[in-house]
Amino acid sequence: MTDCVFCDIVSGAAPARVVYSDPDVLGFLDIRPITRGHTLLVPRTHSTGLADLAPELGARMLHAGQSVAAAMKRSPLAADGVNLAINDGRAAFQTVFHTHLHVVPRRDGDRLRFVRGMIVRRDPDPDTTAMLLRAALDGTRES
Amino acid sequence: MTDCVFCDIVSGAAPARVVYSDPDVLGFLDIRPITRGHTLLVPRTHSTGLADLAPELGARMLHAGQSVAAAMKRSPLAADGVNLAINDGRAAFQTVFHTHLHVVPRRDGDRLRFVRGMIVRRDPDPDTTAMLLRAALDGTRES
Repeated sequence: MTDCVFCDIVSGAAPARVVYSDPDVLGFLDIRPITRGHTLLVPRTHSTGLADLAPELGARMLHAGQSVAAAMKRSPLAADGVNLAINDGRAAFQTVFHTHLHVVPRRDGDRLRFVRGMIVRRDPDPDTTAMLLRAALDGTRES
Repeated sequence: MTDCVFCDIVSGAAPARVVYSDPDVLGFLDIRPITRGHTLLVPRTHSTGLADLAPELGARMLHAGQSVAAAMKRSPLAADGVNLAINDGRAAFQTVFHTHLHVVPRRDGDRLRFVRGMIVRRDPDPDTTAMLLRAALDGTRES
């Protein structure tokens, strides 16, 4: 174990519901999801934020975000849209200091549920959510 | 003029306060900023969203976001953090259907101002804001 929980997830030392994996990027469910399926994509190599993120790893992370967004749309989660976000720095709500891309699936007319999700941040059945996303990503992942 | 306002800004047919420019990406102030300095980065080549964004252009856009974020921190805007966001689809609050990356500078303790900014979305002096950002980017821009 290290002092970085995302490095520990990448190494397998800490548990996570992994939904995406390629040689540079790992994706797993946020344990406090704003909406069902909210996924975090992390470069396997540690950086704290935008200032020390290698641009080629940023590129891989964003490309993974495109794959996961497409999977959210074709999966039974049936996302109509997706918010991608990187919160850089404590002032911008960053809480884990290992660069990560939020991928938040959205549904038409879910605005109130989205706002409530920012407060509640709970999925009652994350194992099924992870299974649905993994199934939608099968055949499109790069490894 | 086309039916895409961001294509028109890229071509010079529509006005904008440009703060960043490289061969693939243009950056200009959001006319309805959530915080002072809120910038939009757009690939010069049109795409509507994540599904038709060429990954290499996404990479260039995110790399530009890293440059602009760093400039926001060292400029007199003195950002302590930055939110990067791509809203993909109407369900996810996308309103202009040309892929764009929001770069929103944040200050320590600005949470209430940030929430108010989501409603008010106004900079009383955007010309000065653009000048400050351009000055901070000088010498780091790729073109």
